[in-house]
Amino acid sequence: MSAPELYILGSSSATPTRDRNPSAQILKFGHDKIMIDCGEGTQMRLIQLGIRHTGLDYICISHLHGDHYFGLIGLISSMNLMGRKNALHIIGPPQLKQIINLQLLEGGKQPEFDIIFHPTNPNKAEVILKTNHFELSTFPLKHQIHCTGFILKEAPKERSLNIENIEKYQVPISFFKNIKAGEDFQNEQGEIIAYQLLSYDPKPSRSYAYCSDTIFDLEIVEHVKNCTVLYHEATYLEALQDKAAERFHSTAEQAGIIAQNAGVDHLIIGHFSSRYDNLDPLLQEAKLVFSQTSLAIEGLKFSIEPGAASEPAIKTPIEFSQVVNLN
Amino acid sequence: MSAPELYILGSSSATPTRDRNPSAQILKFGHDKIMIDCGEGTQMRLIQLGIRHTGLDYICISHLHGDHYFGLIGLISSMNLMGRKNALHIIGPPQLKQIINLQLLEGGKQPEFDIIFHPTNPNKAEVILKTNHFELSTFPLKHQIHCTGFILKEAPKERSLNIENIEKYQVPISFFKNIKAGEDFQNEQGEIIAYQLLSYDPKPSRSYAYCSDTIFDLEIVEHVKNCTVLYHEATYLEALQDKAAERFHSTAEQAGIIAQNAGVDHLIIGHFSSRYDNLDPLLQEAKLVFSQTSLAIEGLKFSIEPGAASEPAIKTPIEFSQVVNLN
Repeated sequence: MSAPELYILGSSSATPTRDRNPSAQILKFGHDKIMIDCGEGTQMRLIQLGIRHTGLDYICISHLHGDHYFGLIGLISSMNLMGRKNALHIIGPPQLKQIINLQLLEGGKQPEFDIIFHPTNPNKAEVILKTNHFELSTFPLKHQIHCTGFILKEAPKERSLNIENIEKYQVPISFFKNIKAGEDFQNEQGEIIAYQLLSYDPKPSRSYAYCSDTIFDLEIVEHVKNCTVLYHEATYLEALQDKAAERFHSTAEQAGIIAQNAGVDHLIIGHFSSRYDNLDPLLQEAKLVFSQTSLAIEGLKFSIEPGAASEPAIKTPIEFSQVVNLN
Repeated sequence: MSAPELYILGSSSATPTRDRNPSAQILKFGHDKIMIDCGEGTQMRLIQLGIRHTGLDYICISHLHGDHYFGLIGLISSMNLMGRKNALHIIGPPQLKQIINLQLLEGGKQPEFDIIFHPTNPNKAEVILKTNHFELSTFPLKHQIHCTGFILKEAPKERSLNIENIEKYQVPISFFKNIKAGEDFQNEQGEIIAYQLLSYDPKPSRSYAYCSDTIFDLEIVEHVKNCTVLYHEATYLEALQDKAAERFHSTAEQAGIIAQNAGVDHLIIGHFSSRYDNLDPLLQEAKLVFSQTSLAIEGLKFSIEPGAASEPAIKTPIEFSQVVNLN
């Protein structure tokens, strides 16, 4: 499968600015789209960027501050008006169900599709669901209210066959599937050929970790260790670290420290305070700690690939004209 | 007082389009701002258009379809984050209070200002509140759910003195206030001078009526009779009158008929279906019935003045650079 793609739809903290909407992202695994957070105006961003709802079957909400979910009810309503039939999975704090259902009830229009709520647990890490293409899990974040991070990881891949050895040991086609799944092969003479000899290790599954909102917390490191790409909030510059701590937010430097300790391939920072018109100082601050850092600029699309990262080649806010390849 | 001004912030029905946000308007009486409906993204439109929350103390919500109120909770949250202290009056269906309060509760941040809910009654016309500058009343609209229209009218103005006759009848200054309020003057000889002789009729109070969403309903005429400016929804062209009726909406022609029967000075149509990229056919259709019609294009500012209306001089969507004078 081609690399997962991350679309940045919103990057502002708390209040929107002229250029920045509140938090929202979409991660694409092939045809599957998973939305992470859904601030007000997210459905308009989708229209602006030409992203359809088709395949958007999972929406993850980190916590119930409005800048992370006030766009959800509008998106659900529009999905219904546009004739959606597929079930929609919503992963978020338990109280979200009541909030959404109350608004659907009072609006007098029940959706013609099922909404399946998966409540998150702010106290422990857990796997929420597995599909053929990805696994979604949550982990606790320390914020003012119930808040979780998310990890989205490609489903484990099959081993690939070592054709040379397959021919050498005369393995019949009917055994290929088992070997790819990691089983040894026993030939007619009763001889056992190890699967490692007959196949190559699969490429590691690519993964994306999302941490917003959170105070600077080294306990996060364990959860996001070795992820391909880490998104970590960077609401403030280090000069405002006291304000950050007081409000349970992080600074750009602190985001860099988490990335460095977790050994991720790439860091993307976002959730910028509306006080910053120019985001470059935030980027520079994080890079001093962790050089492979990018800004979550709205309209950018990132390719979730391991390896050394480079700066986005082209920054075209509000236009997904080009994949930002992180290699 | 200078003429009330109407700012169009959103004009789309049901789902937003690339160019149009869902319903939202602001009516300005001097320093007082009254918002009417508040679809998703309204707070972003305010930022784009450079309109501050200051003085925005009243928000009217016609009904609980999302395209008329999903932006309200975000606006309230931002008002709080920006340090608002003044009470906010919300006029709308009774269930709105629970919806807003539930989201405020779960977000963990209670506003530092009072929110005063004024429930609307979908069954009868009534005055909701009077200030020194305007009177706000509601009237029933026939829609799929509880829905009301709004009438905003300037507070009755004082009579102005007829200086020539004031001098002729030697009226002392201490009586001016009473004469302006419509009381006769009795001089020292016991002679009564009618206030009509001593003063001129006040200019009529300018008024604005808002009708969205509604099926075509001639009962509206009685409520909006002789208003200065009528806003009436025109979701569809007459060719889709069956769909309009089925969905409890109106056509552009029907909006024109209401305006004509009500004898208003000017009609503004809005709440356009997302199927229409080009709105001119809607305008032309309404004008065939009622020539003094304008489109509610986002970014336009209308001056609420009686008299013959003209086309907006300049159309600059999303830029309130110029007042559209309807005279």
